[in-house]
Amino acid sequence: MTTIITLLALLAFTPDASEPLPSWKDTGSKKAIVAFVNKVNTTGIPEAERIAVFDNDGTLWSEQPMYFQMLFAFDRIAELAPKHPEWKTQEPFASVLKGDVKGALAGGEKALLEMVMATHAGMSTEEFEAIVSAWINTARHPDTGRPFTEMIYAPMLELLRFLRANNFKTFIVSGGGIEFMRVFAEEVYGVPREQVIGSSIKTEYVVQNGKPAIVRLPEMNFLDDKAGKPIAIHQHIGRRPLFAGGNSDGDFQMLEWTTQGKGDRFGLLILHDDAKREWAYSRKSHIGKLDRGLNEAPTRGWTIVSMKDDWNVIFPPK
Amino acid sequence: MTTIITLLALLAFTPDASEPLPSWKDTGSKKAIVAFVNKVNTTGIPEAERIAVFDNDGTLWSEQPMYFQMLFAFDRIAELAPKHPEWKTQEPFASVLKGDVKGALAGGEKALLEMVMATHAGMSTEEFEAIVSAWINTARHPDTGRPFTEMIYAPMLELLRFLRANNFKTFIVSGGGIEFMRVFAEEVYGVPREQVIGSSIKTEYVVQNGKPAIVRLPEMNFLDDKAGKPIAIHQHIGRRPLFAGGNSDGDFQMLEWTTQGKGDRFGLLILHDDAKREWAYSRKSHIGKLDRGLNEAPTRGWTIVSMKDDWNVIFPPK
Repeated sequence: MTTIITLLALLAFTPDASEPLPSWKDTGSKKAIVAFVNKVNTTGIPEAERIAVFDNDGTLWSEQPMYFQMLFAFDRIAELAPKHPEWKTQEPFASVLKGDVKGALAGGEKALLEMVMATHAGMSTEEFEAIVSAWINTARHPDTGRPFTEMIYAPMLELLRFLRANNFKTFIVSGGGIEFMRVFAEEVYGVPREQVIGSSIKTEYVVQNGKPAIVRLPEMNFLDDKAGKPIAIHQHIGRRPLFAGGNSDGDFQMLEWTTQGKGDRFGLLILHDDAKREWAYSRKSHIGKLDRGLNEAPTRGWTIVSMKDDWNVIFPPK
Repeated sequence: MTTIITLLALLAFTPDASEPLPSWKDTGSKKAIVAFVNKVNTTGIPEAERIAVFDNDGTLWSEQPMYFQMLFAFDRIAELAPKHPEWKTQEPFASVLKGDVKGALAGGEKALLEMVMATHAGMSTEEFEAIVSAWINTARHPDTGRPFTEMIYAPMLELLRFLRANNFKTFIVSGGGIEFMRVFAEEVYGVPREQVIGSSIKTEYVVQNGKPAIVRLPEMNFLDDKAGKPIAIHQHIGRRPLFAGGNSDGDFQMLEWTTQGKGDRFGLLILHDDAKREWAYSRKSHIGKLDRGLNEAPTRGWTIVSMKDDWNVIFPPK
């Protein structure tokens, strides 16, 4: 009798265990996820091997009208402008200061890099963290007016929790900046800093007046995108994941590497097809383009998650 | 009454909690470690911040007569020699094949790199893992005849366990190869692969006939030594550790970075001063040189652990 009461009490306090993924509709996607996790349990896959990796932009939070980290860079350019009078006439900064996003991005990758280096380097890692922290706590999404940390997908938060409840370690493997994401990943996603993997710039260890600092340099160190993702997974985790989730062709190799491992693996691609509740884009989008992934998902056994058809809600309630 | 019995039962099954560090003598080093961990608990440092980092060679296992990974490289050169007839006359390989260690190392860092690249690159990461695994399971230490995985320090294993029992996450941060260590770190030290940080060579993601592989390239990626250690800690962990343990000046910056953090931190340096039970070397050694660390430990508040005076045993019993 005591056992039954204890069991009931446990169930009452762990809704995830009794009814996982409440924000997911009872469609094929949810069924496939639950069946996979059940099989991992029944076949007794060792806990050490239960590694799950997730892209961030477009997979855990939105990425429209552009990557949120670029919005951070724009805000930072405006903030730094008084110290850089030359930016008034120098692209891409001049366009940013005029509020001309298209003009700012017209310079392509070179312009992007210039903006990142001008805003993300030249300070210590602790200073950078304080800058990002101040921004993420006050900035608002241009369309919804919500904090960026509320532009996250409630069903994906549940999925992270469901996997952890089943002894998975959850990692972020994103093209976004590793130090940018670490500022909020622990609080927002429950993913500790050491389980956040991303793109990085070079750093240098400097000791001044006996005080050490790690200083951020204006030079790329690692681009965590496409074939860089399995490389980064191998470098940081050293083990092939069981579960990979992404939303764009930048995640293709991560899913390929994951799902070609021995035994059962799970590949998940989120399809942005809900223009009403989020945004609708895929094959022809400049941000988060998903084309090859859509073509090959069926033969590779990857699960396409439709935001429109598979999710009850998108964002957490206000 | 039930509570007392449960408590007694718990204590009986968790000797680490009741009497930590049994292989440590009751000297100042042990007292300082226990006092530090108690203070972390009583001041309620959040679990996420309880990060402990340890060097490997000379800190968790021996490093004499030379780094064990170099012995692996020597064995591998002998194994590969039939495919490389040119090695018979080409240094440093010719010396290795003649069993002339001094000659092999005479070429300095350049020769070392050549030997590492010839033996550690040119295969997939999975093939490399199988090679290291086969070696570590069969190779024996030239002096003691014991497996290398038994040339580990019992007191340090206890320290790792003691820290983990107090909710620390333990990491290895070593100049040794990250993929070399990951093969045995989980089983031998209880440190999972994703918590092993080390030096690395570049890798490439290659898909052949639809099968992806990560291929090891003969080019250095990162040297995890000296100022590289805080850089690697920041890259992999993203948080300043509370506890750092090392044994050589290659660990100086790791201890400096750790112990200059705010609040209480712990820096530990192992002094190899036990020629009878292990080896005795420090200020003038080519391997594991400890000079600056010894000079500055007192003013920096670092604990010097004497293998001779602070440890009851060195290696685990046979």
